[in-house]
Amino acid sequence: MRKITRVGVFTSGGDAPGMNAAIRAVVRTALHNDKKVTGIYHGYQGMIDNTMFDMESKSVSSIIQKGGTVLKTARCMEFKTAEGRAKAYENVRAAGIDALVAIGGDGTFTGAEIFSREFDIPVMCIPGTIDNDLNGTDLTIGYDTANNTVIEAIDKIRDTAASHNRLFFIEVMGRDSGCIALNAGIAGGAEAILLPEKDTAIDELIEMLAHAADRNKSSMIVIVAEGDKNGGANNVAKRVHEKFGYYDTKVSILGHLQRGGAPSSADRVLATRMGYAAVNELLKGNTRATIGIRGSEMVTTPLEEALSKKELKLNEDLVEIAKIMAL
Amino acid sequence: MRKITRVGVFTSGGDAPGMNAAIRAVVRTALHNDKKVTGIYHGYQGMIDNTMFDMESKSVSSIIQKGGTVLKTARCMEFKTAEGRAKAYENVRAAGIDALVAIGGDGTFTGAEIFSREFDIPVMCIPGTIDNDLNGTDLTIGYDTANNTVIEAIDKIRDTAASHNRLFFIEVMGRDSGCIALNAGIAGGAEAILLPEKDTAIDELIEMLAHAADRNKSSMIVIVAEGDKNGGANNVAKRVHEKFGYYDTKVSILGHLQRGGAPSSADRVLATRMGYAAVNELLKGNTRATIGIRGSEMVTTPLEEALSKKELKLNEDLVEIAKIMAL
Amino acid sequence: MRKITRVGVFTSGGDAPGMNAAIRAVVRTALHNDKKVTGIYHGYQGMIDNTMFDMESKSVSSIIQKGGTVLKTARCMEFKTAEGRAKAYENVRAAGIDALVAIGGDGTFTGAEIFSREFDIPVMCIPGTIDNDLNGTDLTIGYDTANNTVIEAIDKIRDTAASHNRLFFIEVMGRDSGCIALNAGIAGGAEAILLPEKDTAIDELIEMLAHAADRNKSSMIVIVAEGDKNGGANNVAKRVHEKFGYYDTKVSILGHLQRGGAPSSADRVLATRMGYAAVNELLKGNTRATIGIRGSEMVTTPLEEALSKKELKLNEDLVEIAKIMAL
Amino acid sequence: MRKITRVGVFTSGGDAPGMNAAIRAVVRTALHNDKKVTGIYHGYQGMIDNTMFDMESKSVSSIIQKGGTVLKTARCMEFKTAEGRAKAYENVRAAGIDALVAIGGDGTFTGAEIFSREFDIPVMCIPGTIDNDLNGTDLTIGYDTANNTVIEAIDKIRDTAASHNRLFFIEVMGRDSGCIALNAGIAGGAEAILLPEKDTAIDELIEMLAHAADRNKSSMIVIVAEGDKNGGANNVAKRVHEKFGYYDTKVSILGHLQRGGAPSSADRVLATRMGYAAVNELLKGNTRATIGIRGSEMVTTPLEEALSKKELKLNEDLVEIAKIMAL
Repeated sequence: MRKITRVGVFTSGGDAPGMNAAIRAVVRTALHNDKKVTGIYHGYQGMIDNTMFDMESKSVSSIIQKGGTVLKTARCMEFKTAEGRAKAYENVRAAGIDALVAIGGDGTFTGAEIFSREFDIPVMCIPGTIDNDLNGTDLTIGYDTANNTVIEAIDKIRDTAASHNRLFFIEVMGRDSGCIALNAGIAGGAEAILLPEKDTAIDELIEMLAHAADRNKSSMIVIVAEGDKNGGANNVAKRVHEKFGYYDTKVSILGHLQRGGAPSSADRVLATRMGYAAVNELLKGNTRATIGIRGSEMVTTPLEEALSKKELKLNEDLVEIAKIMAL
Repeated sequence: MRKITRVGVFTSGGDAPGMNAAIRAVVRTALHNDKKVTGIYHGYQGMIDNTMFDMESKSVSSIIQKGGTVLKTARCMEFKTAEGRAKAYENVRAAGIDALVAIGGDGTFTGAEIFSREFDIPVMCIPGTIDNDLNGTDLTIGYDTANNTVIEAIDKIRDTAASHNRLFFIEVMGRDSGCIALNAGIAGGAEAILLPEKDTAIDELIEMLAHAADRNKSSMIVIVAEGDKNGGANNVAKRVHEKFGYYDTKVSILGHLQRGGAPSSADRVLATRMGYAAVNELLKGNTRATIGIRGSEMVTTPLEEALSKKELKLNEDLVEIAKIMAL
Repeated sequence: MRKITRVGVFTSGGDAPGMNAAIRAVVRTALHNDKKVTGIYHGYQGMIDNTMFDMESKSVSSIIQKGGTVLKTARCMEFKTAEGRAKAYENVRAAGIDALVAIGGDGTFTGAEIFSREFDIPVMCIPGTIDNDLNGTDLTIGYDTANNTVIEAIDKIRDTAASHNRLFFIEVMGRDSGCIALNAGIAGGAEAILLPEKDTAIDELIEMLAHAADRNKSSMIVIVAEGDKNGGANNVAKRVHEKFGYYDTKVSILGHLQRGGAPSSADRVLATRMGYAAVNELLKGNTRATIGIRGSEMVTTPLEEALSKKELKLNEDLVEIAKIMAL
Repeated sequence: MRKITRVGVFTSGGDAPGMNAAIRAVVRTALHNDKKVTGIYHGYQGMIDNTMFDMESKSVSSIIQKGGTVLKTARCMEFKTAEGRAKAYENVRAAGIDALVAIGGDGTFTGAEIFSREFDIPVMCIPGTIDNDLNGTDLTIGYDTANNTVIEAIDKIRDTAASHNRLFFIEVMGRDSGCIALNAGIAGGAEAILLPEKDTAIDELIEMLAHAADRNKSSMIVIVAEGDKNGGANNVAKRVHEKFGYYDTKVSILGHLQRGGAPSSADRVLATRMGYAAVNELLKGNTRATIGIRGSEMVTTPLEEALSKKELKLNEDLVEIAKIMAL
């Protein structure tokens, strides 16, 4: 087993609340084990551009409560080329880094897997994305916070919807994953939910709403995942509109505010546990894997496995429950 | 002076956080003065449809902290006709109501003024709208809460913007009034603000952003009022986009969540004072006027005057300050 | 198997955010299965006082986002007597209730177990308490919300602590359970945590703080669980005070605000799942058990078992992690 | 008129949310006028200890949304001595500072007044304290945020109080000033409020509560200002307790969380305006004065005047309104 003296840490891809807590845990766990730590700005881009710096315990003071990532993040085209990665490796080695912790999503994991194989450098991944669409873990960092942000927005919209007898279509994030939509739909008390994983025909939706309208609901809210097959909240609203003259129809696209905000307690603790586990796994000789949580246990999954399959996160029971609750 | 024995209260037009606190204050102040109170649902529509009910102190328990309006609101076409108003008056008289408190915006005030003149019934208005665009008052109910809602959203967006070196265009409410945009721009630390009251050319905006970009800002936020002459955030973003390749450009339209939420402390107190003043003014014989606050004093302005002019709310000093702060 | 036609539902003991979501799920799941529902006010007291009412789908509209419990709660001495329970059963039968869902904590479960045995009535329990100290489940309803409430308070206190170089002792709820304290300590970035399950000597605490002070921390926060053996935050602060003259020492006892607030997304979803499962289990013939969640699966545990042992909830890894993070 | 080339800025006394926005405005307004800026850590202590640093526009990036003060604050005994002030002045002059902006409360103003006279250095004060107890201004920085923090806590406590039929005594900040208590009492819908400015006998309080209890209120909340003559919430609760057996009595002392948190929109804008005005006044030759807001106008008041009298902030109308609303 290779001896590790310096760990590099970076965030890559879309940011998610709680990434800072993970960074902090990586830094402090490494220092606690007498390892040195290098922070890399802007993900893979920062390896190529050599924007790195030595991190101490103080470097991560008072960041646990902050949204975003203090190490910044980026999507990096150059790293997809062999030349880009070679340059990155050169800088990584020059900095004395002999193991990496990568925090991010699918793209981040893919980059990490290739880089680790090509240059035989130990790497451990931490799943950070609000979409909760990564394999090898029940939960990703940022998902819980995003759910809370979304329901706070829905609660606010419900206030005005109920005052006006309005029908709202609220679009939430999730291009391929309906996790946020489903959670927000249940927690926000939505009358219907459109998920990327399900083909809900507009006619079916109209029937559900008609059923709700029959019971004189003072307001109706439909949650539409970004990746819904019908083309998003605006399109759905247009097609539904004429059927519900009694209700004034409005659309709200929540957008990027779902990405920010102080991380929830659960995300801070999850991220801390994951950062701690990532360093410990590296020090035990584990590599090319992702940290995950299953129930309340920390686990690791080889990146190859995590990247090859598509784990279904959508809980079918919840889909059923959502319908019954809308009655 | 006519003796008042029963006060009718309703909310009309767009809802605003704090309206419930105003309703509560109207009810309890009237009861305290040994008057009876009738609540009217759905504004003027409810007068026509005769959806009214007797209110006691308990009717307004635990509503001060709730967004929206428990009396519901609506926009009513029928009330614009003489027949509609005649029917409304018939119901109002039948219910024994001999004075009205109307909570809402411009349209509400116009209806109240006509109704009061036509049927010689005392009426007092309370300014409730998040836009802060009514005459006769420094502040309207809901404006402070909306400002807080908007900056919470901006703070969240700033987290993700800063993590990605992004340029965000955030559209906030305000069709004719730039009050929210200006406040949010200053409080959110925006790099530029586009107001309906100002003609900001796209070229001028680009120059401001170029100036900010020169100083290596990690993120830039432009606040665009709904009523901006350039056609809203999407249009502005499209036109600015090509000039700022270094920054990833995103648009966020905050939408109706700005209307909801638990009212802020300031809005609850303002609404309580206005509800209290409205009833007291009616009991003193004042009529056909709107309640307002000037500095820390409660004032009244005749509706005729309040509706005839356009009071400029935009503070020019703040426009200047916003520019300097963005440096 | 006994045929169930009417389900009674009540909350008992300390309230917890998310109880309303559980009530809503019980009501709608029962109605969906063509059962009738009776709501019982004030827990066991309401059975004795016969304060019950028929619940429809509308009865639980717009309550999912509300803290507390719309069915109210109480601690009931009379129910501990055979006469009290006999009277309760008489009323329950007279109301046509042939199965019960009880939402609450240990005391609630004990009452349910006895009542169900004595009168052979099916009963299913749902764990609701912010303390997360019940057997048969990984998580109780309200715990996640309380954690978020606590870290929001800690974040605020950190602002002022850091501005003043202050040492704060923050007391959080948890008479027997350190779950909130441990979570809050990690998520709030505390320098030390005192748990009821651990005997932390004052000297040991002082050593930890001295170590932190050596690294010139601008502020220090110690989380003290209510049930800490040293006698609570005030006592601990007094004993520590003289050693840290450089730091101004303050105490904050968070108190009952930890019990309230809109439930988090996770608590709303958990409570909804538990309410749904409780009714389904009753309809399947299960009785005298508590609903729980293990990982992402819903489970049931016989009340006898849940009440006989003491499941340790405190995660020892987290205790270790908390120490390393404070470095 | 003396030419100013470098402005020193510091915060002193108790911290308040919005101080960072004021610092930011001072720095950017000064830079905009081609002045240099020195930040002084820990208030007057930092002048003596010479902990100062050059501030650029970047120094105040992304601080507008943060609670506390990035310049830290302290209470400084040494500055009360002539030697201390002489040492402070020496350092101030050595740093090239020829004008000062002091952000804080009464103690800060007193120090500024003496220092400015002794050493003939221009100084402008900005009122920052959550207590709203300073002369020369309608509002101080931090007061609005604290009011919002307090009502969020009260709303949470109301949830649990209402679920249990409880009587809560909530102690809020305000040693001499009842501003927070009065606002929070009205906005939180309290049944009674105890203010330092009023002598409310316990008997009178009991009578008010008895009156409320007669109307079967499901919960009662009494707001007690820290400086209430009866000795604080714990003492009041003890004395009231025996009279209200039906209600379970609880005490909650909100404490220092009232000091922190992200500043409200209104506080950010107020602080920005005050920081801007402070620098402009200095540049116009004004000195030894405090910035204030009256209605929507910025004003200045000589420190001598501001410190010599006691302006009554408590709005008597609000005291009356609070009583009527509790009916």
